[in-house]
Amino acid sequence: MLNITVLVSGGGTNLQAIIDAIRSGVITNARIGCVISNNADAYALTRAADAGIDTCVISRKDHPDKEEFDAALLKALADAQTDLVVLAGYLVVLSAKVIKAYENRIVNVHPSLIPAFCGQGFYGLKVHEEVIARGCRVTGATVHFVDSGTDTGPIIMQKAVEVHEGDSPKELQQRVMEEAEWVILPRTIDLIANGCVTVEDGVAHVQQNTADDDDFEDEIEQDQYDNAESEGF
Amino acid sequence: MLNITVLVSGGGTNLQAIIDAIRSGVITNARIGCVISNNADAYALTRAADAGIDTCVISRKDHPDKEEFDAALLKALADAQTDLVVLAGYLVVLSAKVIKAYENRIVNVHPSLIPAFCGQGFYGLKVHEEVIARGCRVTGATVHFVDSGTDTGPIIMQKAVEVHEGDSPKELQQRVMEEAEWVILPRTIDLIANGCVTVEDGVAHVQQNTADDDDFEDEIEQDQYDNAESEGF
Repeated sequence: MLNITVLVSGGGTNLQAIIDAIRSGVITNARIGCVISNNADAYALTRAADAGIDTCVISRKDHPDKEEFDAALLKALADAQTDLVVLAGYLVVLSAKVIKAYENRIVNVHPSLIPAFCGQGFYGLKVHEEVIARGCRVTGATVHFVDSGTDTGPIIMQKAVEVHEGDSPKELQQRVMEEAEWVILPRTIDLIANGCVTVEDGVAHVQQNTADDDDFEDEIEQDQYDNAESEGF
Repeated sequence: MLNITVLVSGGGTNLQAIIDAIRSGVITNARIGCVISNNADAYALTRAADAGIDTCVISRKDHPDKEEFDAALLKALADAQTDLVVLAGYLVVLSAKVIKAYENRIVNVHPSLIPAFCGQGFYGLKVHEEVIARGCRVTGATVHFVDSGTDTGPIIMQKAVEVHEGDSPKELQQRVMEEAEWVILPRTIDLIANGCVTVEDGVAHVQQNTADDDDFEDEIEQDQYDNAESEGF
């Protein structure tokens, strides 16, 4: 059973997608042991408590010293016997020390098809503003392992999402969350929990999860209907 | 009736896709008036002749002087009463003079989802090699108007294509052509021929083509089945 620790800062919709996917069986062989927030007011903490998950707040306010903050975070991760760290809207940049301690065991979801619209300065609504300004017809989301760069780690899953004529950045952000982020983040966790993801020379390789193959086939079928028409309409 | 001139250098598979789309009615209100090659041996010229389309060779060899080459090309475009220039694997970089003469009337197809894997140095197989090296799960193709930059012009259509685990660059190139390039290039031409594409402040806007709406809906339906599952499998 894979022990997941989810790091959050805000509303926690990606956390909720993981909780729901564990309940519904989209994710097997994994549990969320702990949710850590850097913000005591994060609604994600309420979602975690509602689901009976242990929570913990580790803030810059309580740990103004960077090394102390790292130590507190590493201790909480160790206490939760963390196998996999999931960044779900976590607004703190992890230090090299934390990344090294959990090499290829930290996943992040980014709201674009990396390498487009990623790197320094591309976060939140800004990503979608830039997609629209460039006139792109297709965008999407990416789940990747976190390495020392910004959005440079091995890509595990990506999913394309259509940009509609006249979309506002907020509308596009919502569509990317619903159609891509909340789909591929849980699936990635399921694949990792079932030993289907390996990393070689900085590139992730994914074997199909045959442990729950029947369910998986059903999902794929469904997706062919759900998939956005990735064109300019 | 939109008069198209197609510029080619090689095998002409994108030219063939346009010829077929006109025959089958995917493209309405357009005809190919002329195919111009910079290479007398291009198989695209045979495809054009087989379809009863006028052809013309304008080569650097016959016109070593750049201005003379431009003059010959512009004369051929004018002689063919060209409304729209389509670059279909044309390996010559158009001069600023030609681009200015046909502003927002030259379209190019690029084998990636711009702005990923585009710009100087990204052409042909190199694009797909880089997509695979980065470990991307989704790539695609883009049809855009040509401006003075490299792959910087207004995007008209894009279509996502799945990268498969273990793909070679050639396998991926073939899939991107079949699933994206040969689909969106003809559709873009149909949209332009039916007055559905406008450009404002460097961004293209696309209105749905209601002239052949029934056919269009059928195609969309079909695409939902055809669409690649854009994930890591």
